[in-house]
Amino acid sequence: MKAYTELSNEELQALRKDLAARYKEFQDRELSLNMSRGKPCVEQLDLSMGMMDVLHSTVDLTDEDGTDCRNYGVLDGIPEAKELMGAMMEVPADNLLIYGNSSLNVMYDTISRSYTHGVMGQTPWCKLDHVKFICVVPGYDRHFAITQYFGIENVCVPMLADGPDMDMVEELVSSDDSIKGIWCVPKYSNPTGNSYSDEVVRRFARLKPAAKDFRIYWDNAYTIHHLYDDDQDQLIEILAECKAAGNPDMVYKFASTSKVSFPGSGIACLATSLNNLEDIKKQLKIQTIGHDKVNQLRHVRFFGDINGMKEHMRKHANILRPKFEAVLEILDRELSGLEIATWTKPKGGYFISFNTMEGCAKQVVSRCAKAGVVMTPAGATYPGGKDPQDANIRIAPSFPPAEDLKTAAELLTVCVKLVSVEKLLTERGVSF
Amino acid sequence: MKAYTELSNEELQALRKDLAARYKEFQDRELSLNMSRGKPCVEQLDLSMGMMDVLHSTVDLTDEDGTDCRNYGVLDGIPEAKELMGAMMEVPADNLLIYGNSSLNVMYDTISRSYTHGVMGQTPWCKLDHVKFICVVPGYDRHFAITQYFGIENVCVPMLADGPDMDMVEELVSSDDSIKGIWCVPKYSNPTGNSYSDEVVRRFARLKPAAKDFRIYWDNAYTIHHLYDDDQDQLIEILAECKAAGNPDMVYKFASTSKVSFPGSGIACLATSLNNLEDIKKQLKIQTIGHDKVNQLRHVRFFGDINGMKEHMRKHANILRPKFEAVLEILDRELSGLEIATWTKPKGGYFISFNTMEGCAKQVVSRCAKAGVVMTPAGATYPGGKDPQDANIRIAPSFPPAEDLKTAAELLTVCVKLVSVEKLLTERGVSF
Repeated sequence: MKAYTELSNEELQALRKDLAARYKEFQDRELSLNMSRGKPCVEQLDLSMGMMDVLHSTVDLTDEDGTDCRNYGVLDGIPEAKELMGAMMEVPADNLLIYGNSSLNVMYDTISRSYTHGVMGQTPWCKLDHVKFICVVPGYDRHFAITQYFGIENVCVPMLADGPDMDMVEELVSSDDSIKGIWCVPKYSNPTGNSYSDEVVRRFARLKPAAKDFRIYWDNAYTIHHLYDDDQDQLIEILAECKAAGNPDMVYKFASTSKVSFPGSGIACLATSLNNLEDIKKQLKIQTIGHDKVNQLRHVRFFGDINGMKEHMRKHANILRPKFEAVLEILDRELSGLEIATWTKPKGGYFISFNTMEGCAKQVVSRCAKAGVVMTPAGATYPGGKDPQDANIRIAPSFPPAEDLKTAAELLTVCVKLVSVEKLLTERGVSF
Repeated sequence: MKAYTELSNEELQALRKDLAARYKEFQDRELSLNMSRGKPCVEQLDLSMGMMDVLHSTVDLTDEDGTDCRNYGVLDGIPEAKELMGAMMEVPADNLLIYGNSSLNVMYDTISRSYTHGVMGQTPWCKLDHVKFICVVPGYDRHFAITQYFGIENVCVPMLADGPDMDMVEELVSSDDSIKGIWCVPKYSNPTGNSYSDEVVRRFARLKPAAKDFRIYWDNAYTIHHLYDDDQDQLIEILAECKAAGNPDMVYKFASTSKVSFPGSGIACLATSLNNLEDIKKQLKIQTIGHDKVNQLRHVRFFGDINGMKEHMRKHANILRPKFEAVLEILDRELSGLEIATWTKPKGGYFISFNTMEGCAKQVVSRCAKAGVVMTPAGATYPGGKDPQDANIRIAPSFPPAEDLKTAAELLTVCVKLVSVEKLLTERGVSF
């Protein structure tokens, strides 16, 4: 394959004509496909249907402590669920709070509490003139939306191959006491799919924040969401590392079973230091009497223990892996060597991060949409939906059936080529 | 029975000796009973065990709209659950938002959102110097705790036989724009058990608030929680009444199935005008992708429709009614005519409100505790836990088994008599 930049004007013009015809063919198929969000597919959901059977009318719904899970009470979660989720999150059960069905909701509530009541005795953020948050970009749009909603300034730091640019993070966190937190997806990151290196995690744990109420928001959304059995990313556990580094209270770790059991009907958790937990419970006991213990019990009875959960995740991987590989194969086949795009090859998680040439992402996504394939909006991986390079596109291969996925990926490559050729021709002042 | 105040000093002294002996007998039994909270009893929980069977691994988990309830999505609830809960709350399904497992959590979040972002474009409460809320007293401690937690001044208005003192409510609401809301339990009120009259509801709907962001917090916790089939309180529906009165946006109505299915594993709702819903959804979509749709479906499949739910509530009533009647019978038998206490005789809900002579409630509750019976702390039904008369005690008869309940009620009457006699003797300067 020859790089597009090395093609002559005539070659590009001919190519454009050919690509436009191929694009027209896709349009004529009247597709209606969606690769926009990290939703499990039907086959993945079917894996957890057994969870609907473990509790029935003749089963005892009492937890290990003898608590009747059908009644009020237990603010922080039933012991066996804390044990299971602690194992999933690689923290002691004592460091855990089990919430409702959504870790996003836990993160929102964490920001909201800091805004209304402050963090461990510090000034509530609503009483401060200016609060900032670091957003690792590209990243998760719903994270950025929370801080933006609270009028917090989102400050971007680029995601590199082994994690965020830690020189920038250290500089910002240590010099500016209005920086109160950082949004991280440390493992199989959304959308890049890569994980933070040991060195990066160690530097996180050793941050010297100017703000006493600075917290790392460690969204471990894909902690056991591997694609391969034999090639898995392993992270240093951040709670223990922060403790060892003398920063025991600096991190909130989030996770849920949304992509383990059922999205929307899973259980979500926050893990942090005992000091932070004490601070959080002062608020939580005002907000609720307790979360859904029957659903906690349902999860424990279905998975048994962390080994059962990991075995279950292998079944997810068996469904997801071919989808990732199909997309990557098409990207490789169609785009390698053209020097018009780069993309990641994740070993877990839910996304492939795709970069066009500068200024092409919006057009590519728009072209896909006009041929019936919905992608995540270009820019969505940046705060405010604004990607300064207009280059990043998040590919979510999990939901569509395999055949649809291949069609969508092929269309994507056609659109990328077409938009790239037109960009090059325009730059050269050549009409097309 | 002779009123205690009419007894001679000698009669009171003899009575005290006798009561002290009876109290000692209770202490010797080493009881461990709890009448402190409105928890359903085991037999009530058993009524809903069939709900554990309606969804199993071969059942289709698709809602009426064709949405797979196992996956992400649907911010406001599945249509059939909105229909069911709308019928329970006597409002159109379109006016409903279904949340997670706890209406308390919905109320907290409603206050929190008003505090951080304001109500329909009005100034967020965190930017105001002073915010006040009206608390109808005696009332629900967890309501008062929410506003107190947000630094909101709780202003007390007394609960009368037919609802809050509306002269006071109207005066406060129309004259003071720092009053942003009022906590109400309009039906089978916590703890008095009585309901707002038509006249009271009409006056609520016709309030002329000084504050544009004033809202009535209408916690319809006991909307279908009758004790009797043939003698039920019926309220004018507040949303429709507010609309008719030209105040369509003035009320938030809350309810849940906590005391219909399982506390902690039910579904909670907010019903309000479409304008309010639009305002709320702007926030809700930042906070979560959606609540637990599988549990919504579970409820619909179990209850079928509102008739199924009402039939189910009759079974609850059959369990609760004898408990209420047993307590009331003992109170009648032991305390009638003594003029040392008054109490309510509710036709629904979870509580009996009991009033001692002024200054006796704390001592009564303390005496009960020392004989092994935990009551709701005296004062809990007032903001900050401070009952200015120190007279109100909330009796929660639902949870203990019938025999325990009778023992606890008998102990309560002994403690009330003992503390009352000692009060009278002390006032008369007579030693005992």
